[in-house]
Amino acid sequence: MISIEEAHRRILDNLPPLRKERVGFQESLGRVLAEDVLADMDVPPFDRAAVDGYALRSVDVRAAPVELELAGELRAGSEADATLGPGQVIAVTTGAPIPAGADAVQWLEHAQHSPDTGRVRIRKSLEPGDNIVPRGAEACRGTKVLSAGCTLGPQDLAVLATFGRTRINVWQRPRVAVLVTGDELIEIHETPRRGQIRNSNAYSLSAQVQRMGIQPDYLGIVRDDPVELGRSIAGGLDRDVLIVSGGASVGKYDYLKSVLQDLNVTILFSRVAVRPGKPTVFARNRSALVFGLPGNPVSSFVSFEIFVRPVLGRMCGHSRPDLFRVGGVLQEAMSQAPGRTSFLPAIARWDEGAWRIHPVSWKGSGDMIGFSRSNALVVFPGDRGSISAGEHVESLLLPDFFIRS
Amino acid sequence: MISIEEAHRRILDNLPPLRKERVGFQESLGRVLAEDVLADMDVPPFDRAAVDGYALRSVDVRAAPVELELAGELRAGSEADATLGPGQVIAVTTGAPIPAGADAVQWLEHAQHSPDTGRVRIRKSLEPGDNIVPRGAEACRGTKVLSAGCTLGPQDLAVLATFGRTRINVWQRPRVAVLVTGDELIEIHETPRRGQIRNSNAYSLSAQVQRMGIQPDYLGIVRDDPVELGRSIAGGLDRDVLIVSGGASVGKYDYLKSVLQDLNVTILFSRVAVRPGKPTVFARNRSALVFGLPGNPVSSFVSFEIFVRPVLGRMCGHSRPDLFRVGGVLQEAMSQAPGRTSFLPAIARWDEGAWRIHPVSWKGSGDMIGFSRSNALVVFPGDRGSISAGEHVESLLLPDFFIRS
Repeated sequence: MISIEEAHRRILDNLPPLRKERVGFQESLGRVLAEDVLADMDVPPFDRAAVDGYALRSVDVRAAPVELELAGELRAGSEADATLGPGQVIAVTTGAPIPAGADAVQWLEHAQHSPDTGRVRIRKSLEPGDNIVPRGAEACRGTKVLSAGCTLGPQDLAVLATFGRTRINVWQRPRVAVLVTGDELIEIHETPRRGQIRNSNAYSLSAQVQRMGIQPDYLGIVRDDPVELGRSIAGGLDRDVLIVSGGASVGKYDYLKSVLQDLNVTILFSRVAVRPGKPTVFARNRSALVFGLPGNPVSSFVSFEIFVRPVLGRMCGHSRPDLFRVGGVLQEAMSQAPGRTSFLPAIARWDEGAWRIHPVSWKGSGDMIGFSRSNALVVFPGDRGSISAGEHVESLLLPDFFIRS
Repeated sequence: MISIEEAHRRILDNLPPLRKERVGFQESLGRVLAEDVLADMDVPPFDRAAVDGYALRSVDVRAAPVELELAGELRAGSEADATLGPGQVIAVTTGAPIPAGADAVQWLEHAQHSPDTGRVRIRKSLEPGDNIVPRGAEACRGTKVLSAGCTLGPQDLAVLATFGRTRINVWQRPRVAVLVTGDELIEIHETPRRGQIRNSNAYSLSAQVQRMGIQPDYLGIVRDDPVELGRSIAGGLDRDVLIVSGGASVGKYDYLKSVLQDLNVTILFSRVAVRPGKPTVFARNRSALVFGLPGNPVSSFVSFEIFVRPVLGRMCGHSRPDLFRVGGVLQEAMSQAPGRTSFLPAIARWDEGAWRIHPVSWKGSGDMIGFSRSNALVVFPGDRGSISAGEHVESLLLPDFFIRS
């Protein structure tokens, strides 16, 4: 049995190199940039009016209120050239280019236009540069505007759009397959006979993968039979990552390890000092990584978050894909048999300046119903047998923390 | 100009009633349940072995170590009936039904089978019930296992699968369209001429909508022309929510408000004491809500998060869709002209037991490049002109906070 830290080291030592691909801008939301993006032009590309108002020479309005002559209009999008003479204003809309000669824009609210006289009364003075965004203020041509490694959100899509980057290099996502094993499993539209239960792990695992932006292939239920399991695993090894639920424990019908060995897939670990998730298997051959996760629904879910998430995240190019960790105050005592680090369901609340961690009562690693009320996992260190209410504990916020708070 | 609180009240007062729809289990990830889900059977449906080992009568192993007779085997998924006599054990795998007569399961690790004699040595005693999950322990038939209002995550999909809920009632998502206005805008594959800039708001807004699980329709760029704008808006009013970027300000070419009035769309507010986002318009007719968001890229992004997110979230059935709010310690002084509540870009870090809020330097509401480095918005109250480093500030964590931390 190895420690969780050693398990993570072995995982990180065995990640394949990242591969780039070129995608259309429209498919890039949530992808990780595999290149620095440089400005292809100055932004703004011209001195730009920041407000609706009148472009003018600040020197002309020092003694405001003053009346100036309206010499024309420049609207956003106008290609016209315009020049402002002394004593003149030119009406501008937000985003319009500033006419030559002007050095400030007075707000509409501080001006009054008299159509009869063609004159504009400016009520307030202003400083040179007021309400003008100078050319290149946000970015000069050639400067880096997005860095490789950035996960593209809506903000970044706006930046890409600004610079016309209709295609960009991102890191490829891994191809992932999910396989579940167990003679007791039936599909969800079937009615359980005695001894049977419906397959649920395939769906929670697939959804966990999907939530990372990867569409996994579901390869079905495999019986506890070494030949059938071997055939299915061999079929899954053409993906980058194969996730197998069940069959990884120590029972005589847990064929996963022997099947992997027969297929020349090297087992890098098969027992980790973690609860739930002790019988988690991590293995690889030349082209694929294989995870064997425990068959209990909660164990399967937690093992994914602890072991598989960091791998899929890094394969997508994320530098820190692990669950977000916060420290908080335990609200109810917890106890365990020491020896393994436990990850137990909890509700984390941000409350009056501190995280409060409420353990969720549940009935063990089969109890997904109890577990599904949690939004976090408390980390219960393996060297402790009990933690009292009021003590500090570390917790991992689950990926859908915000919608479960 | 109304307060942000008043704006939120008017928004909440004008939300349409939620509508249910029935979807397949596979499309339900991220949807909000519109029904309570009841257990259609006991879970587990039978007394179940929690580990691989030997089912036995605890009374027989009180004086362990003892040797007992191996009377058979029950595997997970087996439909066989089996009964255990005194002095016997039956081998079971995790998930197998417990044979009649047995009241505990001893781990494989604490037992030794001698194939020659057909006997099993049990090394440790145990208590009645040990390593057995009794029928119904996780849920009894008829109990509520998921509540209406729950946003379905992978955990919940496992629960639905367990109970064979292949179709469920969820709240419909609103149909959303995005329209941008501005003579200066060109599409992203075009090269800007003098006075032009590429359209970026359509893409950030669409991505913001998309990230809420809604696929919006992009209706294109509309010129600053009342006839063209009227036609486009009339076309968008068959959606549940129409988001218009630009044209909502006070300039004479900002036609949005007059066009809405001509179309009998009631304007519920058009100026809010918020920065950025003052000229945000909220309007409705019998069937549609319309948002007019400022045209500056950052204003557009922030106004969406502050005004549109709560609406789309509630229309999807989320009870608390607003951005997650935390209090932290401001790391650098900030100042503003008082009068409006500001939402300014910041990086929020959880560090040594406290949130530390670092303002991000940027160049105003056009500067999406500077803004895109943030993962949070600091809330700068309208009655304050400055906040010193070390003071407590409230911040809203942006939706992709975890991947931007």
